[in-house]
Amino acid sequence: MREPAPDLTLLFNPRSIAVVGASTNVDSAGHDYVRSMREFGFGGPVYPINPKADEVSGYRAYPALEAVPGEVDLVISCIPASGVLDLIGQCRERGVRFLHLFTGRFSETGDAAAAALEREIEARAKAAGVRILGPNGMGVFHPAGGVSFRPDLPRDRGGVAMISQSGNNAVEVITRGYARGLRFGKVANYGNGMDITPGRLLAYLADDPETAVIAGYVEGVPDGRGFFDGLVSAAAKKPVVIHKAGRTGAGARSAASHTAALAGSAALWSAALRQAGAMEARSQEQLLDLVVGASLLRGAGGRRVAVVGGGGGRSVQSADACEEHGLEVVPLPATVRDQVRAKAPALADWIANPVDQSILAGSGLSSNGLLELMLASPEYDSAIANVGEDWFFGRPDAEERLRHACNRLSAIVATSQKPVAVVLGPTESAVGWQRELVDSVRDELVEKGAAVFPTVERAAFVLGRLSARA
Amino acid sequence: MREPAPDLTLLFNPRSIAVVGASTNVDSAGHDYVRSMREFGFGGPVYPINPKADEVSGYRAYPALEAVPGEVDLVISCIPASGVLDLIGQCRERGVRFLHLFTGRFSETGDAAAAALEREIEARAKAAGVRILGPNGMGVFHPAGGVSFRPDLPRDRGGVAMISQSGNNAVEVITRGYARGLRFGKVANYGNGMDITPGRLLAYLADDPETAVIAGYVEGVPDGRGFFDGLVSAAAKKPVVIHKAGRTGAGARSAASHTAALAGSAALWSAALRQAGAMEARSQEQLLDLVVGASLLRGAGGRRVAVVGGGGGRSVQSADACEEHGLEVVPLPATVRDQVRAKAPALADWIANPVDQSILAGSGLSSNGLLELMLASPEYDSAIANVGEDWFFGRPDAEERLRHACNRLSAIVATSQKPVAVVLGPTESAVGWQRELVDSVRDELVEKGAAVFPTVERAAFVLGRLSARA
Repeated sequence: MREPAPDLTLLFNPRSIAVVGASTNVDSAGHDYVRSMREFGFGGPVYPINPKADEVSGYRAYPALEAVPGEVDLVISCIPASGVLDLIGQCRERGVRFLHLFTGRFSETGDAAAAALEREIEARAKAAGVRILGPNGMGVFHPAGGVSFRPDLPRDRGGVAMISQSGNNAVEVITRGYARGLRFGKVANYGNGMDITPGRLLAYLADDPETAVIAGYVEGVPDGRGFFDGLVSAAAKKPVVIHKAGRTGAGARSAASHTAALAGSAALWSAALRQAGAMEARSQEQLLDLVVGASLLRGAGGRRVAVVGGGGGRSVQSADACEEHGLEVVPLPATVRDQVRAKAPALADWIANPVDQSILAGSGLSSNGLLELMLASPEYDSAIANVGEDWFFGRPDAEERLRHACNRLSAIVATSQKPVAVVLGPTESAVGWQRELVDSVRDELVEKGAAVFPTVERAAFVLGRLSARA
Repeated sequence: MREPAPDLTLLFNPRSIAVVGASTNVDSAGHDYVRSMREFGFGGPVYPINPKADEVSGYRAYPALEAVPGEVDLVISCIPASGVLDLIGQCRERGVRFLHLFTGRFSETGDAAAAALEREIEARAKAAGVRILGPNGMGVFHPAGGVSFRPDLPRDRGGVAMISQSGNNAVEVITRGYARGLRFGKVANYGNGMDITPGRLLAYLADDPETAVIAGYVEGVPDGRGFFDGLVSAAAKKPVVIHKAGRTGAGARSAASHTAALAGSAALWSAALRQAGAMEARSQEQLLDLVVGASLLRGAGGRRVAVVGGGGGRSVQSADACEEHGLEVVPLPATVRDQVRAKAPALADWIANPVDQSILAGSGLSSNGLLELMLASPEYDSAIANVGEDWFFGRPDAEERLRHACNRLSAIVATSQKPVAVVLGPTESAVGWQRELVDSVRDELVEKGAAVFPTVERAAFVLGRLSARA
């Protein structure tokens, strides 16, 4: 029988927070946590605990948890491992519900005494009724609740949730995903995952109304059955993308020294993820690409893809990428061919899917025009629109032409009933204005809601996976 | 018996060039070719042929090829297909050695009459002793000879040669490769490859003293045996990377309408490339990565890799990537562990390969320090050094610290006897200063000769392939 999903409401929405081990040293985690709550506009009281300081980052400091004037829902611990057992006792006395242990150097060090201490902490916390996130994790990011584990993360919130065993991976996914249009709601970096396991987090997020898409980075799980239950429950309700790391011998060794994770067999993991209905990512890049697709390519599911943009060589490469990722590059239907014939008779029997934009020059037809004709045809389920910026760079008025084409493209993307994956980049140019132009155009496309991928191969991978899921 | 390699000296080093169909319209190829020779400082006479113009891009124009005062080694044709037969007659009369047909709309259109014209051109040129590059290709890029097919390409020359069936692909590889430190010597975009086939180009480049590494983009070849001969001859003498496109049904259809290429079986192609000793790329990204590796990672060959940089999650991911690409993530040798113990006793039994940079904080040891220790150990053949810029972004003095770390890293790379692949990026950040900083730091690393990859996965792919080749 499945255990019920834990109520993590006060973990993500604490009414008050104490930071034990708060520090006046701006280059320390004990300072970052306090400052983060200020920067994110946390609405309730924040209590830095530091016997030697009067205030930390503008909040009045207290010498100990027992000296704090009000109730505390969440305690964040930045003290050394040796002080944690005592801290749990203090938490019990103050009725603290959630203790997040940023504190590390437990089982992940490979040291037997440190591992034993971790087990004792687990037992003591259970007896005290204190639920633990971590140890060895950065904790909670929930901008809607004013909570963050780093002061410099984006404030805008949205429907993407993430559970991550690794803190730096969570930070990278949030910041890189933000640049690609992802807006994160709830993120939990659970580290060694002692009590609030990834399975319990998934079970909670499955029914969380704020969460539309779930990303997960997992090195290993202590409770395989619990994880699978949480995953099935979440994937039945929303798209879930899981990056399972520690697939190889070397990866598993590294996972053990990072979060003491038992990595397990890669093949078993792939099978379990598939069976649960989750999409598997094999790298952070794939994770981000799939979450961008699941979040921004609404309605993706069919395999028949229209491809426009780029020259002839790019068209051949695009066709390969689409077919190799399970998409069908359906030849141009007669209806579209007849529409081309009306405008550009010489091209009608030559033009194909993918559309080679280099043969359109001077014809009165553009890539965007073809894209509209193809999207209107019932023969296609989705499209990949390649901006092909390199061609523009070689022409006069490059900036004006490129901006014009991208404006029209973003209007098409915004109004299309079918998903359109946009390809722009990679920004590999030694020419400053070209880099800046591509960055600026990409920002505008993302701002208007487009799913933008740096290569056709990555766009095709995502559409292929979304089709396989549907 | 193999045919002898053709002498293409005057194709890449013409003493004089005529551009037939030269144009005063700055938005046309007929203008671009003339302007390109000016911008690239071509040393000999340039003769724009245009009966209606007095001059094109500062060169005196002539009404016809016969009116040109001196000898002509290379004619570039930008006139319509219907005029080419007549042009070949004029070339014969003037003793022209090489005719590059930018002119397209032949067999690639799928039109029977156009294909017949192409065959007639081939026969007529052979009879006239005029060798043809193209049709339907952008032709020759050879900055050392002052020749380019676009005015905006980089001027710096180097030892990378490329043959490409696609023009836009050649432009992308040159400009993107340039930003990553590649310097191109001779590039030929041969389009339909009628006479000067990719096999003949490879045979020529095999013995070209200017060429150290060869990249190829091929959609299909008319003479399988000739291509294989040229490839074997080239790969025996220098690293060759071939991107074979048109691997799928859709890709093959697209190749037919792009360059009338017969794409052939993907499996046969992979086997032939392997047998010939070439490295196969499956995308432009892989082609660029492999050429960067073959050009800049001198001495790559062994499988035993040291990995440093990035936090714990990244370390697990890096280990997976290395092992999945055939590298051995050799555990930290006792000698290195002892050196760590001397400086940071608490880390000595915990630290591992990959090195988790997040546990080094405050220890007096840095990623770069570990990198030096590991490179000095005979247990490692190569290294991957991940800058881990996201960590710096969260700290005070981020720019100063990141620049300091990268300066030290580039000094290590420059003096190391073993190849070090650097990982920086991808520059996916919504924060302007972070983008600019990463771009600027990458430029400096590239400037100092480092092979930089945007992800550990791509660095591991390249080191793995270079090992497999060795």
